[in-house]
Amino acid sequence: MTVLIIGMGNIGKKLVELGNFEKIYAYDRISKDIPGVVRLDEFQVPSDVSTVVECASPEAVKEYSLQILKNPVNYIIISTSAFADEVFRERFFSELKNSPARVFFPSGAIGGLDVLSSIKDFVKNVRIETIKPPKSLGLDLKGKTVVFEGSVEEASKLFPRNINVASTIGLIVGFEKVKVTIVADPAMDHNIHIVRISSAIGNYEFKIENIPSPENPKTSMLTVYSILRTLRNLESKIIFG
Amino acid sequence: MTVLIIGMGNIGKKLVELGNFEKIYAYDRISKDIPGVVRLDEFQVPSDVSTVVECASPEAVKEYSLQILKNPVNYIIISTSAFADEVFRERFFSELKNSPARVFFPSGAIGGLDVLSSIKDFVKNVRIETIKPPKSLGLDLKGKTVVFEGSVEEASKLFPRNINVASTIGLIVGFEKVKVTIVADPAMDHNIHIVRISSAIGNYEFKIENIPSPENPKTSMLTVYSILRTLRNLESKIIFG
Repeated sequence: MTVLIIGMGNIGKKLVELGNFEKIYAYDRISKDIPGVVRLDEFQVPSDVSTVVECASPEAVKEYSLQILKNPVNYIIISTSAFADEVFRERFFSELKNSPARVFFPSGAIGGLDVLSSIKDFVKNVRIETIKPPKSLGLDLKGKTVVFEGSVEEASKLFPRNINVASTIGLIVGFEKVKVTIVADPAMDHNIHIVRISSAIGNYEFKIENIPSPENPKTSMLTVYSILRTLRNLESKIIFG
Repeated sequence: MTVLIIGMGNIGKKLVELGNFEKIYAYDRISKDIPGVVRLDEFQVPSDVSTVVECASPEAVKEYSLQILKNPVNYIIISTSAFADEVFRERFFSELKNSPARVFFPSGAIGGLDVLSSIKDFVKNVRIETIKPPKSLGLDLKGKTVVFEGSVEEASKLFPRNINVASTIGLIVGFEKVKVTIVADPAMDHNIHIVRISSAIGNYEFKIENIPSPENPKTSMLTVYSILRTLRNLESKIIFG
């Protein structure tokens, strides 16, 4: 598989290290040369690329998606908080209608998107509670504090780097059905996501507690492995979920 | 999409009702004619079939899989407890290596297979607790009782109709890492599955409480919708999880 990776931060570097690629192109405004990676100086989708992975930022999703959708590629998107912006969201899905691309939203830092995607038409509401160390939100707090409660759109303005999970869920069930709670807890050294789904088919609760990676405490290794799974599924003869 | 459905029980009938198919073949030993469905008298995979859905029984999986794997089809399997049988399991995956088919295991009656499949190489153990009404296990009990605790293989011998969830998880992480607890609770009128995953990447807990369908209390509608999702993903331009 020949891949274009947008973003050579912690996730991009891990994909280069762990992925099984024939050829890797990378686009990133700030990175230096990385062995085994063909660096693009201007953004483009080379014609031998079958799969594009975005692991840069919501801004990158907004800037490059429409160009990517002109190509017959698998497009894997991680920074889904870009879609909390309704104007961009409508433009993207309108372009996708006539695009030769297929778009993949990996489960990222959570799980249970299989059940959510199966019953999406029957969901009454989804509540997402994220518990984080205060410093990861740029806060200095003594006690456990609810720092936000509201819609994905509002959360995306206040915590733009922290609502990919909520945005992906919003894309599945509709943003108006999703309620976000962000809790800062000084006793935590890692993130916990609790997703509660109420639907006519059943009620589901997913508790996700990712262990920080010693080498990159800020990177969710689950996110990296969820991208690798999506890549693997493109070619695999056995697909779960 | 032209589909062959094996099994015209509650799940098969719901797929006929809710699915979006060009043509439907069905194979079932006992069913009568169903409008819009071409009934096969002998088992075969007609050459215009692109997708085979098994929703019959573990016995059907064992009996027809090797024949199905000779065809270039998408093969969706629900009765995964067939794979608790190690001899069959090894034969199946050995055949799959040279098969033109792709095999799909939908999330079925649970969810979270996206996260489990992403981190499968790092899983230490998975504990599955299933809480059921005693009558669905053929039991008559007064109080909440642990009726089984052990491996998937043992559970499959005692409760062959009740361990598809555990078998699917066993297929992902290895059967030796899965521990099954079955609890009969007379206070329950439906099933609850709690899946606890311990791994080097993180710890995950999924609680699945499916509401029984009024028309078919024994059928998990989540299972039906998970098959419909797998079918939809085969052709969709937007794929989640």
